[in-house]
Amino acid sequence: MSTTLIRNGRIVTAVDDYRADILLEDGRIAAIGRQLDAGPEVRVIDAAGLMVFPGGVDCHTHLENTFGDSTTCDDFASGTKSAAFGGTTTIIDFAFQSQNTSPLDAIERAQSKAAVGASIDYGFHVIVTHVDDAVLNDMRHAIRHEGVSSFKMFMAYPGTVMVDDAAIFRSMRMVGEHGGMIALHAENGTVIDLLIREALAQGHTSPKYHALTRPAILEGEATHRGIKLAELAQAPVYFVHLSAKEALAHVIEARDAGIPVFAETCPHYLFFDESVYDSDDFSLAKYVMSPPLRSRESQDALWTALKTDDLQLVSTDHCPFCMKEGHMGRVRQKMHGRDDFSKIPNGAPGIETRMTVIYDGGVRKGRISLNRFVELTSTAPAKLFGLFPRKGTIAVGSDADLVLFDPQAQQVLSVHTHHSNCDYSLFEGHHVHGKVRKVFSRGDLIVDEEQWLGTPGRGQFVRRGEAGGF
Amino acid sequence: MSTTLIRNGRIVTAVDDYRADILLEDGRIAAIGRQLDAGPEVRVIDAAGLMVFPGGVDCHTHLENTFGDSTTCDDFASGTKSAAFGGTTTIIDFAFQSQNTSPLDAIERAQSKAAVGASIDYGFHVIVTHVDDAVLNDMRHAIRHEGVSSFKMFMAYPGTVMVDDAAIFRSMRMVGEHGGMIALHAENGTVIDLLIREALAQGHTSPKYHALTRPAILEGEATHRGIKLAELAQAPVYFVHLSAKEALAHVIEARDAGIPVFAETCPHYLFFDESVYDSDDFSLAKYVMSPPLRSRESQDALWTALKTDDLQLVSTDHCPFCMKEGHMGRVRQKMHGRDDFSKIPNGAPGIETRMTVIYDGGVRKGRISLNRFVELTSTAPAKLFGLFPRKGTIAVGSDADLVLFDPQAQQVLSVHTHHSNCDYSLFEGHHVHGKVRKVFSRGDLIVDEEQWLGTPGRGQFVRRGEAGGF
Amino acid sequence: MSTTLIRNGRIVTAVDDYRADILLEDGRIAAIGRQLDAGPEVRVIDAAGLMVFPGGVDCHTHLENTFGDSTTCDDFASGTKSAAFGGTTTIIDFAFQSQNTSPLDAIERAQSKAAVGASIDYGFHVIVTHVDDAVLNDMRHAIRHEGVSSFKMFMAYPGTVMVDDAAIFRSMRMVGEHGGMIALHAENGTVIDLLIREALAQGHTSPKYHALTRPAILEGEATHRGIKLAELAQAPVYFVHLSAKEALAHVIEARDAGIPVFAETCPHYLFFDESVYDSDDFSLAKYVMSPPLRSRESQDALWTALKTDDLQLVSTDHCPFCMKEGHMGRVRQKMHGRDDFSKIPNGAPGIETRMTVIYDGGVRKGRISLNRFVELTSTAPAKLFGLFPRKGTIAVGSDADLVLFDPQAQQVLSVHTHHSNCDYSLFEGHHVHGKVRKVFSRGDLIVDEEQWLGTPGRGQFVRRGEAGGF
Amino acid sequence: MSTTLIRNGRIVTAVDDYRADILLEDGRIAAIGRQLDAGPEVRVIDAAGLMVFPGGVDCHTHLENTFGDSTTCDDFASGTKSAAFGGTTTIIDFAFQSQNTSPLDAIERAQSKAAVGASIDYGFHVIVTHVDDAVLNDMRHAIRHEGVSSFKMFMAYPGTVMVDDAAIFRSMRMVGEHGGMIALHAENGTVIDLLIREALAQGHTSPKYHALTRPAILEGEATHRGIKLAELAQAPVYFVHLSAKEALAHVIEARDAGIPVFAETCPHYLFFDESVYDSDDFSLAKYVMSPPLRSRESQDALWTALKTDDLQLVSTDHCPFCMKEGHMGRVRQKMHGRDDFSKIPNGAPGIETRMTVIYDGGVRKGRISLNRFVELTSTAPAKLFGLFPRKGTIAVGSDADLVLFDPQAQQVLSVHTHHSNCDYSLFEGHHVHGKVRKVFSRGDLIVDEEQWLGTPGRGQFVRRGEAGGF
Repeated sequence: MSTTLIRNGRIVTAVDDYRADILLEDGRIAAIGRQLDAGPEVRVIDAAGLMVFPGGVDCHTHLENTFGDSTTCDDFASGTKSAAFGGTTTIIDFAFQSQNTSPLDAIERAQSKAAVGASIDYGFHVIVTHVDDAVLNDMRHAIRHEGVSSFKMFMAYPGTVMVDDAAIFRSMRMVGEHGGMIALHAENGTVIDLLIREALAQGHTSPKYHALTRPAILEGEATHRGIKLAELAQAPVYFVHLSAKEALAHVIEARDAGIPVFAETCPHYLFFDESVYDSDDFSLAKYVMSPPLRSRESQDALWTALKTDDLQLVSTDHCPFCMKEGHMGRVRQKMHGRDDFSKIPNGAPGIETRMTVIYDGGVRKGRISLNRFVELTSTAPAKLFGLFPRKGTIAVGSDADLVLFDPQAQQVLSVHTHHSNCDYSLFEGHHVHGKVRKVFSRGDLIVDEEQWLGTPGRGQFVRRGEAGGF
Repeated sequence: MSTTLIRNGRIVTAVDDYRADILLEDGRIAAIGRQLDAGPEVRVIDAAGLMVFPGGVDCHTHLENTFGDSTTCDDFASGTKSAAFGGTTTIIDFAFQSQNTSPLDAIERAQSKAAVGASIDYGFHVIVTHVDDAVLNDMRHAIRHEGVSSFKMFMAYPGTVMVDDAAIFRSMRMVGEHGGMIALHAENGTVIDLLIREALAQGHTSPKYHALTRPAILEGEATHRGIKLAELAQAPVYFVHLSAKEALAHVIEARDAGIPVFAETCPHYLFFDESVYDSDDFSLAKYVMSPPLRSRESQDALWTALKTDDLQLVSTDHCPFCMKEGHMGRVRQKMHGRDDFSKIPNGAPGIETRMTVIYDGGVRKGRISLNRFVELTSTAPAKLFGLFPRKGTIAVGSDADLVLFDPQAQQVLSVHTHHSNCDYSLFEGHHVHGKVRKVFSRGDLIVDEEQWLGTPGRGQFVRRGEAGGF
Repeated sequence: MSTTLIRNGRIVTAVDDYRADILLEDGRIAAIGRQLDAGPEVRVIDAAGLMVFPGGVDCHTHLENTFGDSTTCDDFASGTKSAAFGGTTTIIDFAFQSQNTSPLDAIERAQSKAAVGASIDYGFHVIVTHVDDAVLNDMRHAIRHEGVSSFKMFMAYPGTVMVDDAAIFRSMRMVGEHGGMIALHAENGTVIDLLIREALAQGHTSPKYHALTRPAILEGEATHRGIKLAELAQAPVYFVHLSAKEALAHVIEARDAGIPVFAETCPHYLFFDESVYDSDDFSLAKYVMSPPLRSRESQDALWTALKTDDLQLVSTDHCPFCMKEGHMGRVRQKMHGRDDFSKIPNGAPGIETRMTVIYDGGVRKGRISLNRFVELTSTAPAKLFGLFPRKGTIAVGSDADLVLFDPQAQQVLSVHTHHSNCDYSLFEGHHVHGKVRKVFSRGDLIVDEEQWLGTPGRGQFVRRGEAGGF
Repeated sequence: MSTTLIRNGRIVTAVDDYRADILLEDGRIAAIGRQLDAGPEVRVIDAAGLMVFPGGVDCHTHLENTFGDSTTCDDFASGTKSAAFGGTTTIIDFAFQSQNTSPLDAIERAQSKAAVGASIDYGFHVIVTHVDDAVLNDMRHAIRHEGVSSFKMFMAYPGTVMVDDAAIFRSMRMVGEHGGMIALHAENGTVIDLLIREALAQGHTSPKYHALTRPAILEGEATHRGIKLAELAQAPVYFVHLSAKEALAHVIEARDAGIPVFAETCPHYLFFDESVYDSDDFSLAKYVMSPPLRSRESQDALWTALKTDDLQLVSTDHCPFCMKEGHMGRVRQKMHGRDDFSKIPNGAPGIETRMTVIYDGGVRKGRISLNRFVELTSTAPAKLFGLFPRKGTIAVGSDADLVLFDPQAQQVLSVHTHHSNCDYSLFEGHHVHGKVRKVFSRGDLIVDEEQWLGTPGRGQFVRRGEAGGF
């Protein structure tokens, strides 16, 4: 690897904000200082006028993931490229435990897919759909020996991935003892399932019924339940895609008491609300994700919680399905639920827009500080999921994953300019301030303005340390 | 100033934790890196095995402060030396507005005292005891032009320093508009005054009645009131020496709502509790501070709040009075209240022990992380009171205020080894792990093991920026 | 007194609801039964189709009260007649302790006024404006020997009636020990006073500024403070005219904890909101009461609290001032503040409309049950203020204070039909269901449809028992 | 039926307290008055010195109930006799829906058992163990046409009676629409089941592990879940045998918001705590009930909630199993779980001691008022479950179910004096003040001091009105 000197940038971490040069050597940060010497072999990059952030860490992505019959439309190649253009240099994706298989098999399968396509570094959470003694043993092995310290379980989707409270509790207890953490999809699946069946029976088939059958109160209920299971298990717990103020209230109460409860929210919950579900039009399928968009009151509460650290980080839940069948060769995408909202694959794209929209809507609009922005998008996910200090900061010895960000630049977000395979963007037409100019991954310049310098397969699997000890 | 290279230390900031060399030049941090070159002129200090913290910031000290007839027994010379030996390199002390004088006069008087004696850097909060239009104008001037952006007001001590709610509200509103912050001593002074008079009338004169006449519920009440005044004024507010869970509960509720409410606690509330007030012995006068020590439940709640960021920082409220009259030439010290607890000057020493006891009781005992320790003792006070990034971190360009701390060393705290003039230590005989080995102030080595290299007057007044914008 | 038999009414108490006859003898209820015998001397009244309620108890009225230079426009004659036509058969008015006089003098003066004019029974709270040892002794005497067990104190109106927290606390403690209760007007007077002076200084003189200078947060603050003082004093406390959800929240929290905190609200807070303060018109002077009308959210919260027993009763705070100077011979009425809202006497009429509007808006609209209506308007005030079981219920041995109410009748409320001296009604033009048909006071029929059968002076002072033990 | 005149009793209802005579005719209260005439045929009973309460209503009993292989040791004959001696004149027992049968069959079977044995009046809740469209229809029919308006569902005991959240939600919604109410046994059964299996696997077989495997947090969780399901269903909900402060907190929060959430507690939770589970002795099997006894903090919270109306009533959950096999011919009683705590039938006796212990521990010890005692033991259960005004009060027209209670008498509670078949009493040896002297059921004197005048079969099924509309 080459040696690079980034001159005169404004370095911003979760706590600091200062001007200095950064020397990158062997994929790591070797020195930070005023007017560092650049030897003759050193590539010098002028960052004057730019902010230098640690590379983004997105700990909730779904690349090449299959749910039921549908597979997300981004593979590791397209997905990680899209991530990198948005300033994200590490993702944590998912390894899916098929019924009656081992979590270790799931990790192996996921790694083999990612190894081929990923251009940035990656890790995995294992989605656990079945728990017994053997599975628990394999989970422990994964934490201790495979660098996989987090596991996702579903309180929703009965009949497919939902597990019962006892399974969650057992997993929390074992995983918590060994430095791991359970991530929960918290919605009361049994009642939602009833509401869906009733809606369909009444002929309510359009996408908006996806939202109407997943009321916020059921996310609140499941979140409370998950917290209590974790308390009993004396283990940390993480809530993915928290969207409703009803759920947030329980997280706040637990955190006030010093209980290790953590939660992410996603950009779509911060910038859109349930008012989009205003018609029976099928185009609303693009807003079919779980949980659905919530009230304005919830949105406001989420922003406040990002500031108060009641939410610790922003992930994307990038789970892209195309609106058009056959786009990029993908089938059983959104159109699959044309006549039955329950068949619309759940999810939306967002891997590329995360940092930009949070900067614009958060920092520029005065809702969060610049340091907090870095914490939410990079430092906190890295610390919480065992990637720190290799990822998540700008400090001597850390991986040289860096983003040169131009706060003065302006851009209009669009499906036409993003690098995901997905054929729509939730942020279509959004005008934002701030733009990623250059991205380094372990010292390699992989994004240079509009130019892609990364290569599939250059990304590495990152063995993670303990999770939840933040 | 000389150039110094600190080699191989474990650098710990509020967010980072890594091993590197630090180059100090011209009183500032010039570079941080792996194996930095040390030129021939450079003093090299080996920090292998040591932690390197940013110098402590203690934002609540009372040096050479006079309350009524009593003057604290540390002047700026002895007090700042004591602070430095404990790892504190910046203090914020108080400038007292005598009735009918200007806050600006108060600042000038305080500066002239500190300029002579201080061996570390310092700033001031102004204690405001009277508010009118002229005073408000001077407060604004102090923020904008004098580098004094915080003001303390008392809800207790009627007849001397207590101001009414309208005065607090007006000050908050004006100060909040101009980047300043009001710090409140929150106890309901009127009722406490009644309880004191009743106790004395009943012949209850011993020190323990100091505690019995200042019930926790009255700190809770005043804290709530202060928060509501701040909300109405749309201004930040800071609570000094928060001690009671009843008060903490209101701070937590406000912070959950995103309201800019901040609070410190002090080491004595974290390590001692009301069970000390178990006799009529006059020796309990050493525990006469306001608020008094609280219940074990409160103590536990304070530790939890340090972890959850519901308390943002730990200050000392170092307000030393000697137990013996005439010690170090001081009179009207604790003995002054021999026959009347209400005449015992309120306060206790602690400027030197803060960082060590918080490290030992917090980090070593597993209650807070090492990063959080740095945040509580240095970064947060620096940020909250407008000293950052000059103080409060280890980053290129920041003042070279550094502490080399030996986590393996053990020591027994005692009045015999501390450097304060005070003739007792609350922590007498406490065995702790961790010891300050070396302290740098703006690049000068002022403490080297047991050796004092500082000089009175080398400390500088630090013009502070905006407060409360944390 | 004559004997009366009320036949076939639907008897409604705070708990029961049944059909029976009621026999009234010697001013009391002698028997209740199915088809009771009516001897030859017995007047028989047919109540078929009517509800029979215990006579209303209004524990917050201001008849012939003087505040500053202004005197309310109803004296005991007109005020109690108006009350009776509305179904109220007992009031608790106020005896005002002028500065430096005894509460006992205040009671004597109030009694001499009421003795002349009152046509229904009455008691007094003493408004205490100054507290010292002698005053405390007299308060105890009043509870024990004068049948006056409640005292009102003001946290607002500095310079006239406001007392400090220590005075409130001392009074609560003494009164609580002896079976009495302090009633608080809870608004932070010092800050309000500042806001008023600032508003006037800015030329804001119209009535709406009365509301704008008394923000809800300051009622919340004072309510919290009053509760904490009561907790410390281990005494019950009662909040008059609670209007803001910010205040209610504190009452709810205290009551959940089993602390004896009580509060009333008034009809105007239940039926009107701050949206009336929409212009600079002087006609808004009719809405100048303290606290002012609040938000719709507060209004909804008050209704919920009436149902959940977080508010225990509805009083009127009938404090009538005429809009026109000279009406009924009264001067310094609302017009007195024509050019300065702070000079508008605070208060509004309502003594006659209370039961009807609560029945219509509460029972008929489904917000509260019929039993709860009786509890709110009669039983709870009687119990809380030591009038029970003489007043507040329909039971053998209780005073024969009864209201025959026609739930089918409809009426339009108006200044033209009410019996108060006041020249306006807040409920002008309100169409309501339900009408008082007949009213008995100690067995005497004093209201018979539109006919007035009462006489000034027939009302009796009721010596009350302990207050606050509800 | 005969006519009876009860002279000079102190009549106490949920609101009133006065001295009068009561005339009983045709099983009902005909008149209440001072010195009522007693005709020649009238039996006169002197109640001077006695309190007269409305007959107790116990809405949670298990007579002749079979759980698994075990049947409670009281049948309707012994159970209702025991109830009557304790002052209870109406019970609501359970009709059990066996899997795949109709709730209507369950009611029919229960009625045929009770008709033979009951000596006091009774109703039923149906225990619903399976829900489908037909069952829902039958539940509606039961409310509308059978006088059965409440249904109990279990969140515990997976594999036998537990139903899932969707079944609960559907039932709540339907039942709520038609004037009925769901009662929930709220414990998280799935996790408890795991804990039980783990305990047994570790060889923990003694009774105390019953308590250790049912932690309070799991009652709290299920209670919260039940409330949220009810909120979503817009239906009232009732929690049986609430025992833990963790559960209570959720009830309080919901009630503060005006949501129709109701809960009972039972005497054993008010007088015993978890400290009894202090050994591995099998005699602790007598304390094996679900939920188990809780902490002292919970006990205190329950008493506070009885006062604040956060708990509305006290039922017994009388579910007696003998300690000795074969006692009264019963087998598979407590001894059945000699070697496996999970086989100990859950439950304890208490039907006879309820009113006495609540009077003694509540009223006499100053925790609740006398009126509140009547409300908790009679009025509230009658109102909440559709028995009012026939049951639950002393008013003209109500059933003449009356208890003559001697507050001066003292007694020692014991298995030797109670009338249940159960061979132990939780309150063995408890000395209490207060004793039931005489009990009337619909005008019949069935208990006269120690004499039993009731007869099996005289009790009547009471068709109940709407439930939950309290």
